[in-house]
Amino acid sequence: MTVLSDITNSPGSVDPSGAGYLPGLAIDLVILGFHHSQLKVLLLEYENTGLFALPAGFIQKKEDLNAAAHRALTERTGLQGIFLEQFYVFGDRSRHDPSPLKAILKGKGISPSKRHWLLGRFVSVGFYALVDFTKAVPNPDALSDRCEWHDLANLPPLMLDHETMVQKALDTLRAAMDRKPIGFNLLPETFTMGELQTLHETILNQKLNRSSFQRRMLSLNILERVDKKWTGRAHKAPYLYRFLQDKK
Amino acid sequence: MTVLSDITNSPGSVDPSGAGYLPGLAIDLVILGFHHSQLKVLLLEYENTGLFALPAGFIQKKEDLNAAAHRALTERTGLQGIFLEQFYVFGDRSRHDPSPLKAILKGKGISPSKRHWLLGRFVSVGFYALVDFTKAVPNPDALSDRCEWHDLANLPPLMLDHETMVQKALDTLRAAMDRKPIGFNLLPETFTMGELQTLHETILNQKLNRSSFQRRMLSLNILERVDKKWTGRAHKAPYLYRFLQDKK
Repeated sequence: MTVLSDITNSPGSVDPSGAGYLPGLAIDLVILGFHHSQLKVLLLEYENTGLFALPAGFIQKKEDLNAAAHRALTERTGLQGIFLEQFYVFGDRSRHDPSPLKAILKGKGISPSKRHWLLGRFVSVGFYALVDFTKAVPNPDALSDRCEWHDLANLPPLMLDHETMVQKALDTLRAAMDRKPIGFNLLPETFTMGELQTLHETILNQKLNRSSFQRRMLSLNILERVDKKWTGRAHKAPYLYRFLQDKK
Repeated sequence: MTVLSDITNSPGSVDPSGAGYLPGLAIDLVILGFHHSQLKVLLLEYENTGLFALPAGFIQKKEDLNAAAHRALTERTGLQGIFLEQFYVFGDRSRHDPSPLKAILKGKGISPSKRHWLLGRFVSVGFYALVDFTKAVPNPDALSDRCEWHDLANLPPLMLDHETMVQKALDTLRAAMDRKPIGFNLLPETFTMGELQTLHETILNQKLNRSSFQRRMLSLNILERVDKKWTGRAHKAPYLYRFLQDKK
């Protein structure tokens, strides 16, 4: 389940019937941050419960599902036009556990009735994004106390099935990297094969063979060779590449 | 949106409030059939409207999302234990068009009120399955007149965004084939590399290079070489393979 990431007004104004939103459907965002060979994930923290959670959202009745996910991403990071993709729908009955949300609402001075919409069963659509974490301005939602980057290798305990969500997002990203120009909003307009390889190695958390990486990337037909990078030593200059526009 | 594939009793008994089901959430199934180098898709037909649609389903309040999809697959085909995967959630507002469902309900003698749950906005989770179509026993649901296989290359007009769904399922299947043992319920327990290649060529609708196909399949570590196939001419006998159990 989910927290009130897209309700940016005061928590007391949360409509207990969920009016204006699609019932029983949430969005959870696995926002992965990358910068200088480091990988992080953006989490909300709830002081009164000691819980951490993925940023989440709900879909307004007059809103497209994907637009709601983009809105939630912008609300939590200030970023727009970011690569954001669905990766899985979490719809097991066993996810339904109203206790963390009840504790969070109580901590904010709300005593929810049993019929409060946030305490019901939610199916959640998982989305993942990959952003330059130095460019994001993390912003907690109405019910959380902090919104911060955490090292992927050292995550605090997460609410409900959010650890599974992080793992599944990573699996999807890693599988997609060999087919899509996943890094186009992380790398500069033009980049060397070495810079692209470093991005892949960080996300995969493993070293890659240089020549087979280059061969595989070139075989995808997503890169265009631009020019040699000027290093002062012409015979050592690496080529620069950019992602083909229509493949972004 | 969606039709009543999982309500197998008479259409008159459909509860107009949708009681017992998760509100506003549906499942659509792209069931791809394969046999002897042919690819087909299973469609429902509504005589009174001239419409065709993908088999669909709803999620019971006490049911997991994926279990509901498996139930709908079994109800329409009689098959169980089939590879069935989510591929995309269709959640645009523009999908909401109550007119086809209204026509279908009227054709079945139901005059739905404006508040009938089937006329509301639905977000639909798309699932795809790949089955041996000679083993399926197609079975229409309460509102449809026929459930039949159609050639993928020659589809009739489909309801709402169901054509997009078929295309997106195919794209997902084609991308997944190079990573997963997608065909394990289509091929015999042991098979030759040529048989596996024919399956891939049919789904991709293109000829593949024999040696690079073999090299790529072996590099995935999903196949185990079993023995040579006895053809009477030992030096020409192709090897037999099977999918590694833990990769299924």
